[in-house]
Amino acid sequence: MNTKHRFTVDPAELLLANSWFNAVEYMSPDEEGVTRPAFSAIETQVLNYLADQARAAGLVVTFDAGQNAIFSLPEDTNVEEYVLIGSHVDTVPMGGNFDGLAGVLAGLLCLIRAQVNNIKFKRPVKVIAMRGEESAWFGPCYIASKALFGVLSDAELTSPHKNDGRTLSSHMSDVGINMEPIIAGKSLLKKEKILEYIELHIEQGPLLIGKDMPAAVVSAIRGNIRHKKVRCIGEAGHSGAVPRAFRKDPVLAMANLLNRLDESWLTILQKGDDLVLTSGIVSTDPKRHAMSRIPDEVGFSLDIRSQSQDVLDAMTILLKEEINDIECERRVKFDLDPAHITPPALMDTEVVKNLEKAMSRIGLKPTTMASGGGHDAAIFANAGIPTAMIFVRNQNGSHNPLEAMKTEDFLAGTSIIYEHLTGTS
Amino acid sequence: MNTKHRFTVDPAELLLANSWFNAVEYMSPDEEGVTRPAFSAIETQVLNYLADQARAAGLVVTFDAGQNAIFSLPEDTNVEEYVLIGSHVDTVPMGGNFDGLAGVLAGLLCLIRAQVNNIKFKRPVKVIAMRGEESAWFGPCYIASKALFGVLSDAELTSPHKNDGRTLSSHMSDVGINMEPIIAGKSLLKKEKILEYIELHIEQGPLLIGKDMPAAVVSAIRGNIRHKKVRCIGEAGHSGAVPRAFRKDPVLAMANLLNRLDESWLTILQKGDDLVLTSGIVSTDPKRHAMSRIPDEVGFSLDIRSQSQDVLDAMTILLKEEINDIECERRVKFDLDPAHITPPALMDTEVVKNLEKAMSRIGLKPTTMASGGGHDAAIFANAGIPTAMIFVRNQNGSHNPLEAMKTEDFLAGTSIIYEHLTGTS
Repeated sequence: MNTKHRFTVDPAELLLANSWFNAVEYMSPDEEGVTRPAFSAIETQVLNYLADQARAAGLVVTFDAGQNAIFSLPEDTNVEEYVLIGSHVDTVPMGGNFDGLAGVLAGLLCLIRAQVNNIKFKRPVKVIAMRGEESAWFGPCYIASKALFGVLSDAELTSPHKNDGRTLSSHMSDVGINMEPIIAGKSLLKKEKILEYIELHIEQGPLLIGKDMPAAVVSAIRGNIRHKKVRCIGEAGHSGAVPRAFRKDPVLAMANLLNRLDESWLTILQKGDDLVLTSGIVSTDPKRHAMSRIPDEVGFSLDIRSQSQDVLDAMTILLKEEINDIECERRVKFDLDPAHITPPALMDTEVVKNLEKAMSRIGLKPTTMASGGGHDAAIFANAGIPTAMIFVRNQNGSHNPLEAMKTEDFLAGTSIIYEHLTGTS
Repeated sequence: MNTKHRFTVDPAELLLANSWFNAVEYMSPDEEGVTRPAFSAIETQVLNYLADQARAAGLVVTFDAGQNAIFSLPEDTNVEEYVLIGSHVDTVPMGGNFDGLAGVLAGLLCLIRAQVNNIKFKRPVKVIAMRGEESAWFGPCYIASKALFGVLSDAELTSPHKNDGRTLSSHMSDVGINMEPIIAGKSLLKKEKILEYIELHIEQGPLLIGKDMPAAVVSAIRGNIRHKKVRCIGEAGHSGAVPRAFRKDPVLAMANLLNRLDESWLTILQKGDDLVLTSGIVSTDPKRHAMSRIPDEVGFSLDIRSQSQDVLDAMTILLKEEINDIECERRVKFDLDPAHITPPALMDTEVVKNLEKAMSRIGLKPTTMASGGGHDAAIFANAGIPTAMIFVRNQNGSHNPLEAMKTEDFLAGTSIIYEHLTGTS
């Protein structure tokens, strides 16, 4: 326990939360960390496990048209309007156990705490355990929440799975989702019924560790421009026999592009603007690459994020300019797949203020921060629903096997939401 | 036919050569181009096919201790000393049909031309069709010729196959080679018996096309320093959530290294020195990479070649310096696998001069050039055997499906060797 904060932990809740986290971890093992592919049987198994746990605690469970699990107190089953708490249960390949899952379990724990203590929420509450949020599997991110609002594009629905190449649409159908309304762009829920959307999530960066805080309220989410596969196309040749002047080397052209973007990144930060830039996937073709062969092609991903739409717009232009320049200099061609774009999302000022007040009431110092990662919350916010997030301190970042959230910190974050749902300022 | 040169083609030889090239191509199909893995059953099949062809033409065929095929006229079977003509039959994955094979067929055609016309060689001649030369399969290059001279290192013998991971030693054993003397570093042949080694090969660059010449004599072979897999190790993290200052991004570090080496390359050329530099294989780990994950690691190959040992030595130092610099700046670690090193090889002045004279006698303008690619010839030359090569004009470079040697040019190159073996200056 952090000595600087007054929040205290209920030992029974700590055991319960740990048993849930462990059970789901055991369901989704991989060589390292856990793997819960978006719209997979493993994901369904996790939802069914949570449904069993919830029913055992006296909660009501339904599955919505997106095959997400919806939990509520019995009295809140058929309410007109409600506050929605939730997150996703999928992970990146060989990821950590907490990214996504923590937000679902926080919601469940709020319901159970109210049920056990016979406390009535100020407004009806529902909890949603969503499916696919991670872009690792198909390219598009926030898939389940986009489906809920009918905003999954045709390009997204036809994106191929990273392993089997089958479309997102086909994988969604596999887990029992009726794709007709989704393809037609119809909303699967009545968004005007959602009073607020609140998502707890592990922090994916190191800021809360630096601040020695167990949790904080998120005030904004970075938007992103993402290219799943940029191809740089050159000309194959013998590594020893083609003089420099005759070469069209796609790998050195890619290295040059990444290096130029990296230099611009530094300049943008020095100007005081917000930006992060990642090429998470880089690969020559394993079927034809060789040490002694100038490759004909290399593929790489680009993930560019900022809290500022202006910076994202400027990066789009810069990327095109650098590519044109390198194409001329190095006689290669870059082929950019269509960008996956998510605008930056502002959290609702009122909800943020109320969560800060709840922090204060349970003995934590009110703190806000920006979210570097994107989240389902961005989709809810951009759909016009008053939205906010709670970040929980976490070692070693996310999207890797070493995610390390302390359950005490998780319970602190959960208690902020519970206090927001039940307490009075 | 090129109108500037007097060399003429025998139509029957052209048909015969084409039938051989086509037959071997049909034996080794792939999605694109041909694939003849080093020390594979396909390679054995090619050698057996050529042995059948040779026997049908009245030649004698044996297999040596390296399971390479040896061809000769019946009268040259048990000679004390001989001129050796040859090359290799393996290819890179999805490579072209001519790299290697052309040199073997040139030797065979010389034997058949002598046999058919009842011509006696000035000195006995043997032809060798060697196995694995390409580094694409295990990392080390010139494997079969290194085995012949007992210079395959333990590191090379234990190099894993790119697909199945089993060692080179185990694959060599699979095709019937007794590995005991090779592992003991014993020579499989008496090198003092080899009067000369001559290898015909397609040119792997575009120089003969530029000069409008069907063939030329090679005067030197570039040496190389090669790293099959350099690992750059950083730290995984969420692509959106880790600020620049907290990152240890291996992909941007690799891009920076390649970009720096590329800039030094330009400087070295501007000083008038010889260098080529290639990173033919680049890859993040497909099992764990994702668009939204800062990778923990990236692997890439490096292939650095020069005709000058001094330049190769300077590049070794430069590589280490740049790596140290980037490790400090970007807080990553580079892990260099042991370098595969082949020193530059000079061709024998006397043999080169005699091949030039042969060119002149058959009506081609005597021409010499350096070889960018390495070849089995480098091993013979560095073993002290008087060695030279003939390059044949070829479109689109080598190590790719688009290799395009004209059979007329091949016959011109073959005739230089035949004239060298039979004619008098």
